[in-house]
Amino acid sequence: MYRPQIKVLDCTIRDGGLMNEWRFSKEMVRDVFDGLAKAGVDYIELGYKADKKQYNVEDSGPWRFCDEEALREVAYDCASKVSVMCDVGRTDYDAIIPAADSIVKMYRVATYVKEIDKAIHLGNHIKALGYEVSVNIMAVSHCLEPELDEALDQLAQTNFEVVYLVDSFGYLYSEQVHYLADKYLSRLKGKEVGIHMHNNQQLGFSNTIDGIIKGINYLDATIFGMGRAAGNCPMELLLGFLRNPKFDVRPVFDLIQKYFIGMQSDLRWGYEIPYAITGILNKHPRAAMAFMKDGGKGSFSEFFDTFADAEDAD
Amino acid sequence: MYRPQIKVLDCTIRDGGLMNEWRFSKEMVRDVFDGLAKAGVDYIELGYKADKKQYNVEDSGPWRFCDEEALREVAYDCASKVSVMCDVGRTDYDAIIPAADSIVKMYRVATYVKEIDKAIHLGNHIKALGYEVSVNIMAVSHCLEPELDEALDQLAQTNFEVVYLVDSFGYLYSEQVHYLADKYLSRLKGKEVGIHMHNNQQLGFSNTIDGIIKGINYLDATIFGMGRAAGNCPMELLLGFLRNPKFDVRPVFDLIQKYFIGMQSDLRWGYEIPYAITGILNKHPRAAMAFMKDGGKGSFSEFFDTFADAEDAD
Repeated sequence: MYRPQIKVLDCTIRDGGLMNEWRFSKEMVRDVFDGLAKAGVDYIELGYKADKKQYNVEDSGPWRFCDEEALREVAYDCASKVSVMCDVGRTDYDAIIPAADSIVKMYRVATYVKEIDKAIHLGNHIKALGYEVSVNIMAVSHCLEPELDEALDQLAQTNFEVVYLVDSFGYLYSEQVHYLADKYLSRLKGKEVGIHMHNNQQLGFSNTIDGIIKGINYLDATIFGMGRAAGNCPMELLLGFLRNPKFDVRPVFDLIQKYFIGMQSDLRWGYEIPYAITGILNKHPRAAMAFMKDGGKGSFSEFFDTFADAEDAD
Repeated sequence: MYRPQIKVLDCTIRDGGLMNEWRFSKEMVRDVFDGLAKAGVDYIELGYKADKKQYNVEDSGPWRFCDEEALREVAYDCASKVSVMCDVGRTDYDAIIPAADSIVKMYRVATYVKEIDKAIHLGNHIKALGYEVSVNIMAVSHCLEPELDEALDQLAQTNFEVVYLVDSFGYLYSEQVHYLADKYLSRLKGKEVGIHMHNNQQLGFSNTIDGIIKGINYLDATIFGMGRAAGNCPMELLLGFLRNPKFDVRPVFDLIQKYFIGMQSDLRWGYEIPYAITGILNKHPRAAMAFMKDGGKGSFSEFFDTFADAEDAD
């Protein structure tokens, strides 16, 4: 698929950091940035901009906070833009410096649909500082449809550049992606729509392709699929699919070989039955992550049934 | 998706046997058959019917040959039908006993498009013995389209029940599956069409769903995706997707836990970059399998480039 408007965003360090408390070395993040820049990736998300008043700085690596100095040690000016993510309610407005003084080009505001007003407030603040702004509505598979519609209509009135369709639980099938992509694109005319898929059911890549087919232009992926629990759409597959000659998948293969195969065998993101189960059942992966942390020795069938039991309540 | 015509075929022992020379114990195959029967799977493929004059019986486990006695030690009469696969040119016609004397219900003839006449000859022989017959055209992503069309038109004239769309190299994307499914369904009116997808690009499950959406009713899958190289559409995901109440995914989870997680860490089918590379480039996985057997220590980028070099020839 060659469509010049397509932008690829790598969020390996940000989403993958959920698996190791963002404890990536500066050398490694520098290599990742450099490799992704050489691969032609349009945006490279280097972490969260979390509120230091709410989180102990000692408990996480630097990519949970993305201080300007830390970013400048790993990123450099080039065609690839730096992005960071901030959560509604977990962001210190005063910690965001003007865009003119920052290497960051885009902020992505992560929100649940019920907090859309706060997300727009935060986005407006960031936009006024001169950044590109995206709003990523999480857990869309748990939204009531009128609330989602209203949120999209509110976002349509903003001057933010991008709104993301996010499958936090790895639940969506292709037909649901088609349905939601149509909704986002029709209610957000003039804006770009992005897609961020989780891989619980091995549908992260295919759902991203379905998004492309429907007209979505901002595509999230991570190196070797690294991300929370089952992880994300793998960057190497996405670049193998896209036909824009500016992309080169080889630097991503090199990063996988140097860093990610080893990390994956320690941290075990990717296809695991407990993650598949929460995906199939449209549940937050936290129970599956707890199951895996316990060594994954419990019965899969019993784990599956715990959710069925939970739904006996009326 | 609830469509009563849908038939699920498990080929774990047959396709998975390509990873261990069919050296599964009888106890394990008996457990697999029993679990799949309890899961409501319609067909259970227990191996190949390979010609004992062409292969040394000592070099493989019993599921490469599927002697009637071996099958009867692991399978029993129930709603799930036993199937076996035979390759054109590697099958002893005289070794196939009449269906009335066999526990086997279906033979699947695997063929390349150029050998379709031989496949039809073999299929006619098997059909006359009283079996259901399927023809599986392998490596369709390497076919010249007029040859494929002619093969389908020839198959339309037979009395075989099923013709399979097979993505041997894990190359097809959803739009290609849609295109080919339309072709198979329109040229094979009155027959069932099946789909057998490999998972090199993590598209085995999603492509199978795309086949269902287009009207394909025979669906191949394997437990925990076990199969050659990157493996196949995972049975547990497929049963999680289908809505027919006769299916129960729990016995598959139990089998995964008892056998397949351990086997996977030894045999390493599934998502590996060399398999992804041959999938992206529409190549037979044999070079990737050799790369993996070598310990997977070579450079992925150089492996990728070997194929680009090979195509410099004009």
